[in-house]
Amino acid sequence: MTSDNCILVIFGASGDLTGRKLIPAMFDLMKGGHLPDRYKILGVGRSQYNDQTFREKLNLETQEEGDDYSLFLENVFYQSADTASEDDYRKLEERLTELNRKYKTEGNYIFYLATPPQLYSVIPRLLCQLGLSKEDKGWRRLVIEKPFGVDLESARQLNRDILSCFKESQLYRIDHYLGKETVQNILVTRFGNGIFEPLWNRNFIDHVEITAAESLGVEKRGGYYDSSGALKDMVQNHLLQLTALVAMEPPASLDSDAIRNETLKVFQSLKPLDRENLNKHYIRGQYTSSKIKGEIVKGYREENGVDRESRTETYAAIKFYIENWRWGGVPFYIRTGKKLPTRVTEIVIHFKSTPHRLFKKAFGTMDNFNKMIIRIQPDEGILLKFGMKMPGAGFNVKEANMSFRYSELSSVQLTSAYERLLLDCIHGDSTLYARGDAVEACWEFIQPLIDEDKSGKPQIFGYPAGSWGPEHADDFIEGEGCTWRYPCKNLTNDGLFCEL
Amino acid sequence: MTSDNCILVIFGASGDLTGRKLIPAMFDLMKGGHLPDRYKILGVGRSQYNDQTFREKLNLETQEEGDDYSLFLENVFYQSADTASEDDYRKLEERLTELNRKYKTEGNYIFYLATPPQLYSVIPRLLCQLGLSKEDKGWRRLVIEKPFGVDLESARQLNRDILSCFKESQLYRIDHYLGKETVQNILVTRFGNGIFEPLWNRNFIDHVEITAAESLGVEKRGGYYDSSGALKDMVQNHLLQLTALVAMEPPASLDSDAIRNETLKVFQSLKPLDRENLNKHYIRGQYTSSKIKGEIVKGYREENGVDRESRTETYAAIKFYIENWRWGGVPFYIRTGKKLPTRVTEIVIHFKSTPHRLFKKAFGTMDNFNKMIIRIQPDEGILLKFGMKMPGAGFNVKEANMSFRYSELSSVQLTSAYERLLLDCIHGDSTLYARGDAVEACWEFIQPLIDEDKSGKPQIFGYPAGSWGPEHADDFIEGEGCTWRYPCKNLTNDGLFCEL
Repeated sequence: MTSDNCILVIFGASGDLTGRKLIPAMFDLMKGGHLPDRYKILGVGRSQYNDQTFREKLNLETQEEGDDYSLFLENVFYQSADTASEDDYRKLEERLTELNRKYKTEGNYIFYLATPPQLYSVIPRLLCQLGLSKEDKGWRRLVIEKPFGVDLESARQLNRDILSCFKESQLYRIDHYLGKETVQNILVTRFGNGIFEPLWNRNFIDHVEITAAESLGVEKRGGYYDSSGALKDMVQNHLLQLTALVAMEPPASLDSDAIRNETLKVFQSLKPLDRENLNKHYIRGQYTSSKIKGEIVKGYREENGVDRESRTETYAAIKFYIENWRWGGVPFYIRTGKKLPTRVTEIVIHFKSTPHRLFKKAFGTMDNFNKMIIRIQPDEGILLKFGMKMPGAGFNVKEANMSFRYSELSSVQLTSAYERLLLDCIHGDSTLYARGDAVEACWEFIQPLIDEDKSGKPQIFGYPAGSWGPEHADDFIEGEGCTWRYPCKNLTNDGLFCEL
Repeated sequence: MTSDNCILVIFGASGDLTGRKLIPAMFDLMKGGHLPDRYKILGVGRSQYNDQTFREKLNLETQEEGDDYSLFLENVFYQSADTASEDDYRKLEERLTELNRKYKTEGNYIFYLATPPQLYSVIPRLLCQLGLSKEDKGWRRLVIEKPFGVDLESARQLNRDILSCFKESQLYRIDHYLGKETVQNILVTRFGNGIFEPLWNRNFIDHVEITAAESLGVEKRGGYYDSSGALKDMVQNHLLQLTALVAMEPPASLDSDAIRNETLKVFQSLKPLDRENLNKHYIRGQYTSSKIKGEIVKGYREENGVDRESRTETYAAIKFYIENWRWGGVPFYIRTGKKLPTRVTEIVIHFKSTPHRLFKKAFGTMDNFNKMIIRIQPDEGILLKFGMKMPGAGFNVKEANMSFRYSELSSVQLTSAYERLLLDCIHGDSTLYARGDAVEACWEFIQPLIDEDKSGKPQIFGYPAGSWGPEHADDFIEGEGCTWRYPCKNLTNDGLFCEL
């Protein structure tokens, strides 16, 4: 992969994503020697900074320091611009042209929209009007932060708007989950090994469980979150993307479109949710006040910025099927929630039990030993659960674990998701970005749930902060005595060791 | 399982197996509460001991001590008897009858032949003449130590001799390898889990490798070993038994005969070795003098009791096929040797590589990542090798390990092989003992190699003590660049950490 010289233009540069994620990621890339010889970063925002004061602001916001960082910051510039002012945008274009000429960045620009979503249509149109979307003098790429739309209709509209200014091949829709090493590793685990893929289908898999649990609540994002909720914030993008990687057919190559074509096929194969029986497919929850380790913890409705009678879900669990030859009849369960006992994202492949029960179980509870747990965060790794003989006479069997932690693989530190995604964009590799058709397909799948939510009809279950969500979420899981996996059962939200 | 009251009669009780293995195993069984309420042990041998002096001898030989052990020894008795003297045997019968009456052991006797192999026919005949093989007054079981015969003809003769006195159901032919927990665990791993069996066949397995390496030389057994060799000492029994457990079809039940029927089927399916081309199937080696860590180490021919021009093999490697639907075309490689770099017994399942090479290897050497290593000793456990993504951009793949150590499973100490086998015999469970037909089938399989050895024709390759055997043993392995697995490469025979 070659890294062309280029300018990264960050819109919304005065917002917190820039100082918290983008600048540290670029700095790490620089230190790792991954950036091109000549790279520049131009922050754009309404706030009135100049290059110097912007650098000082970044100095305060990031945790970085040292000579390296000072040198790095010399590559950062700032241009204030208001989207309401065509004048400002002309000035922006002039500044870009000047930087490009001075630093010989060959006309290659990345436009990164780290702005409020309302500007996702506006800025591309302005760039287009100034001719900045044309690729005759270097490449032009547009990175769009999430959320991409708030429902099917708005996502379609946004795609139409942006595609009237940029080509799909120029677009990089961020799903920072896809930038995580362990998420990419799902592909390698499945298709880089001969031993898993033969088992990876309806013949050997009983059901699949995907959990993204957060121990935090809404923190300072109460206002935004209350208008969004778990379904739109987590399910539509991250959890369905994880589902696609778990369920997809082997791609023809590692080419970006080959992989994204397979992803799309999964979304297109999702069995539409039955609007008449949504309560069999969907459980909504909202955390309530509770006591954790002796301290009273706020309920969701008491959080800052949240409506006191809010019906926004902070927990969502969905059961669905993928209608194709590989997965026909295999239930997929996905859940996400805030204020759960721990922060963990994991995929659990539940294999079917043996066709013939030859051995006795040492302890009578487990119905089936074989599970593969792919841990996305924390403690990235893979765990295989299987049955082993208990020492002693007879053939009593007990559950045992084989585990691998990703941190064992290499002394190289795991790169952050933003680091990886920015580098891929510089390389022109959009594999780990969501394609427009896939985003729409995901919205289409959850649209019945959004409509139901809007109707105000569906029940919303309270669950005590620090618990695993509404109690009857376990009833959801098919099979006698089957439950969700609980990596740790305790009601706590800090310092707990969770079993991988 | 119930443990009937019984008397264990050990023939050859003055030999070292009794003090080194049998008595400690019985003591451990007693401590674990596994022995029946009334158990007695009667040592029989030519040496002139009485109960008291025999107990004193055992006190010196075993490492055990304490009150428990003193109490245990009160259950041990001694009767001297010469196989040439019918009188002695009548006295033995009287003694047994007396002990049985006095201690109410219900006429249940285990006769354990820990004698030189020459007596394996003689003693059963004498017991038979005294009516001690009849089961009308309690059960009678006969345990026969290895080796069971020295070739096909002698094994057949021995079976005929013993079966004229005892029924097959009364016979317990020791293969102490089968008593090892991890050996039994091969069955549980394969048939107690739904995820391994679907891969366990010619479609997914490239080849199978079984190694039993010893770091020791012949030590004090030079005289015996020189008339036996690696083929008879290790291959005919232990390595072929391991092969059977790896290769067998699922048994109908855990019943002793159900399992042993499947074992036999494997032996019956072994493709006969081609007598015209034995050098393509068989490599013989003999260790030569070398320097290990600066110290000169003796070669085999310099060992005590070994012929100075001996052509006995201390290393044997065999390549063969199993002709059935599961294994057709899959090569099996087994090897064993003395004075190798480490002591290790392991089974390596080499899975086929992926049908489509989607990812690049991070480092160019490995042809295939997927291996399952079942470690029998030391560090009993299972290791699964597979490919994982290297952190960073792109999809470079590197070998990673998932491992399970049997010692993690339970705080219960692993029972020794002799403990397990003695207990099974008390229970009347012969699953882990070799059946007569299987023993003969194994001899039949290696008979062409024995004949070839006798002819004096086959080459015998020298290998330096502390190396992995004859260099060209690697040429044996089919496939470009394929070699045996070397759990540790270094030339050393102590204190080396070996990768599981």
